Amino acid sequence: MVKKPEVMDRIITLTTDFGLKDPYQGAMKGAVLSINPRAAIVDITHSITPGNVLEGAFVLLGACSFYPKGTIHVGVVDPGVGGARRPILVETQDYFFIGPDNGLFSLVLKKEKVVRTVLLNNSRYFRSEVSNTFHGRDIFGPVAAHLSLGVEVLAFGDEVEESPLTIEIPETQKDNSSIKGEIIYIDTFGNLITNIKVDDLDYYEAGAVEVAFKGKRIKGLKPTYSSVGSGEPLALISSSRYLEIAVNSGDAAGFFKARLGDPVRLKGRKKAD
Amino acid sequence: MVKKPEVMDRIITLTTDFGLKDPYQGAMKGAVLSINPRAAIVDITHSITPGNVLEGAFVLLGACSFYPKGTIHVGVVDPGVGGARRPILVETQDYFFIGPDNGLFSLVLKKEKVVRTVLLNNSRYFRSEVSNTFHGRDIFGPVAAHLSLGVEVLAFGDEVEESPLTIEIPETQKDNSSIKGEIIYIDTFGNLITNIKVDDLDYYEAGAVEVAFKGKRIKGLKPTYSSVGSGEPLALISSSRYLEIAVNSGDAAGFFKARLGDPVRLKGRKKAD
Amino acid sequence: MVKKPEVMDRIITLTTDFGLKDPYQGAMKGAVLSINPRAAIVDITHSITPGNVLEGAFVLLGACSFYPKGTIHVGVVDPGVGGARRPILVETQDYFFIGPDNGLFSLVLKKEKVVRTVLLNNSRYFRSEVSNTFHGRDIFGPVAAHLSLGVEVLAFGDEVEESPLTIEIPETQKDNSSIKGEIIYIDTFGNLITNIKVDDLDYYEAGAVEVAFKGKRIKGLKPTYSSVGSGEPLALISSSRYLEIAVNSGDAAGFFKARLGDPVRLKGRKKAD
Repeated sequence: MVKKPEVMDRIITLTTDFGLKDPYQGAMKGAVLSINPRAAIVDITHSITPGNVLEGAFVLLGACSFYPKGTIHVGVVDPGVGGARRPILVETQDYFFIGPDNGLFSLVLKKEKVVRTVLLNNSRYFRSEVSNTFHGRDIFGPVAAHLSLGVEVLAFGDEVEESPLTIEIPETQKDNSSIKGEIIYIDTFGNLITNIKVDDLDYYEAGAVEVAFKGKRIKGLKPTYSSVGSGEPLALISSSRYLEIAVNSGDAAGFFKARLGDPVRLKGRKKAD
Repeated sequence: MVKKPEVMDRIITLTTDFGLKDPYQGAMKGAVLSINPRAAIVDITHSITPGNVLEGAFVLLGACSFYPKGTIHVGVVDPGVGGARRPILVETQDYFFIGPDNGLFSLVLKKEKVVRTVLLNNSRYFRSEVSNTFHGRDIFGPVAAHLSLGVEVLAFGDEVEESPLTIEIPETQKDNSSIKGEIIYIDTFGNLITNIKVDDLDYYEAGAVEVAFKGKRIKGLKPTYSSVGSGEPLALISSSRYLEIAVNSGDAAGFFKARLGDPVRLKGRKKAD
Repeated sequence: MVKKPEVMDRIITLTTDFGLKDPYQGAMKGAVLSINPRAAIVDITHSITPGNVLEGAFVLLGACSFYPKGTIHVGVVDPGVGGARRPILVETQDYFFIGPDNGLFSLVLKKEKVVRTVLLNNSRYFRSEVSNTFHGRDIFGPVAAHLSLGVEVLAFGDEVEESPLTIEIPETQKDNSSIKGEIIYIDTFGNLITNIKVDDLDYYEAGAVEVAFKGKRIKGLKPTYSSVGSGEPLALISSSRYLEIAVNSGDAAGFFKARLGDPVRLKGRKKAD
């Protein structure tokens, strides 16, 4: 076989809820490497809360689009493994996404141009023995490895018409002077990410914005955490381009006793045209 | 030096109890890469419970055999570091295993064909300064790196006659109509892995099997988690080929308040010949 | 472009407080790989306690110097991100260090020979859009990636005269017969690392040393954990070359109810000349 380094060395990212102690993610990496020993495997995370598809979708949204064109993104948060949900490969203009069709890719796919969706039904590219509980090792990893070796997308199964299943970030409610949203993600630092997008914020004057959360009022959008004193709360635009509530050098989740789904209200003054 | 890519790029896996916060696993990877900068290091896990050799052995069992032929598996769960236990390299038909001779490799070695065991007593392949507390960085990592560069197995020390030390998974007790076993591993999802092997289960009709655990009865072996309703318990064959007790979309360890060592009883009806 | 493998394949290590669940470290790796898809990224840790610069400095001290010459070490524990602290690149005789100038590299730089310090003010090598909250992804990662491709150090910004900012490990107090120190790091095993260095210990006879800690007395410096019975405390020289208080096969932090900053007193007898 002629070596095609630009294909063989392709990057394969992994985003799973397998945890770090168990043999699962190590076995999955082995299954990939036993097909393509030169695959460049990158761990995005194996620490998604078990079975939490929305959390997995949010992490994929925040990480995938920074990778080089041609990257193969494998996502396995798969509480329905072995059941009716379909195993799929989604080819977009820039990437490949491989995993269960349960909404895991739906947030990131909104940002990408989908070329085609393929149902993974050609078992030739699975591990010889497929379990009912571990498709990461037995189907998704092997398919990613074969793809990284240059196997054509349509060889893995039949192209399907239907779009991949969608899960939605809860919608905000907007009017001329306010947006109602909620906390949709809490990160390791305790920063609170809301579902209010930077595009919505653009509508208001940054200085005049006021965020009401848990009975407190936070004035203005700040450019950086250190724009306020240490231990003080602030609102800013997160690196993932949503409204974020944070505490400088502190833990906003603890400070506000915040939880996922807590309502956030933003008041503003429409920018002059 | 002539480049030998097929050797120099060899995969080195790491399975340790070093944790992820401390400098230990990072230092060990550095020690490997300073000898072979092109080694493909793969983390199986660094999150084994500190000093828990059996847990490490179980993870190695569940992960190693999915790697390509020639992979070098380094395992360091080594509460006796610097003491009497021997540092060894075990060559099998497909792999190399490097670490302390304390039983860590004994489960996976049952599945492999051992070719030879070498006592690591040639300090030429150690780091120049060997500590008494960190043989992962000072002995096992460097030996793996030199091996990945093509150094012959017998250069690392003397071949020994004795087999590597063995630790055993507790034995089950079997008769024609039942097996008594116990929980030997609890994974991140709370799934309960027993010591009852798939070969033992083969003896009984799957549909007629009944598992008694913590005062509850679970009927039949199911093919997938989603074969029962959400939140309901089930028994199935784990991806590591043992009897597993799980809860669909739930945490069986929490559901059953289960702990390692809890007894499991399986009743069955012998298959017709 | 002519391939320069010895440069293009350069190792880039990452030491951050980004945690493992969030998209941050995955996004940062993507930002590196989108510039140099062949960069060999190695995770030292992403589990530094959020914002704890001293802890990050200690991990960098314990890990960096084991890497091969030419390695690019990126450190991002950056509570002041987006504020006044400077982004820097420090070139030493053996390595490159990239991150915020907040003391994070000050412990490891004491061991290295600094060649020059460059202020990262050439935005040509940043991501096209730079956030105020995530310089790991937008500045430090991209600079590391361009450096790994062979861009000259001085292209990234202006050389500065001032040394990088320094944080200090608390000083010990010494006299002829004793040293007063404290616990500066507690590892995953519960081992207690003090600020008493091996060079200080060299001054005393190892057998006659006595360590007083939390009302208990530990006699002598032992060569290995297993020099005392299981569950018994001991003092020894840590793999990072500091005095360490440990419990054989146990958790010294739990045994002593120890915390960072707890005082340690070592008494000794000066070695005969």
